[in-house]
Amino acid sequence: MKKYNIFANIPAEIKEELFEDIISKESVKIERIISKGHTTTEFEWYDQKRNEWVIVLKGEAILEFENAKDKRLKEGDYLNIPAHTRHRVSWTKPDEETVWLAIHY
Amino acid sequence: MKKYNIFANIPAEIKEELFEDIISKESVKIERIISKGHTTTEFEWYDQKRNEWVIVLKGEAILEFENAKDKRLKEGDYLNIPAHTRHRVSWTKPDEETVWLAIHY
Repeated sequence: MKKYNIFANIPAEIKEELFEDIISKESVKIERIISKGHTTTEFEWYDQKRNEWVIVLKGEAILEFENAKDKRLKEGDYLNIPAHTRHRVSWTKPDEETVWLAIHY
Repeated sequence: MKKYNIFANIPAEIKEELFEDIISKESVKIERIISKGHTTTEFEWYDQKRNEWVIVLKGEAILEFENAKDKRLKEGDYLNIPAHTRHRVSWTKPDEETVWLAIHY
């Protein structure tokens, strides 16, 4: 068993949004996402087979939904996004990293 | 979809360690745990059927293992505890809340 830190090993330069699997099983995926001003490509939506529970651990972001109001997420804010709920990241803090933890289940 | 904050709604007084299900499915359980100086009952071990991925989001704690070295967890530290790995919480910060997020899968 090795201990890691969710805020460690963040590259100094993040050209594209960074997706890293922490745990990846058929039943569940635990993922760290790092954004720095990144957003989902324009006019693109995430439409996922699994539910996603997501929390912002550092930074700030706005999630946009096709059929619901935008959600602004600050440190510690979390949301459960049911499968096939079309959403996208419309904004993330440009001057510091936003660290997300996502549980796909 | 409702937004919540993992650091909100912490009771002023925490007599016993607080366990709250955020998501509870057969395949996965997402749980918030709040400790304030609490530890697992002496001589007791957690021996769980499922794997547990655990992160300390605030505060500090020590996990003790039957067959491995103690792990001191600070903010952002995480660990994957395989099923049936006997462990206990031997210490948590006494003067402030320790907020854990545990994913059982």
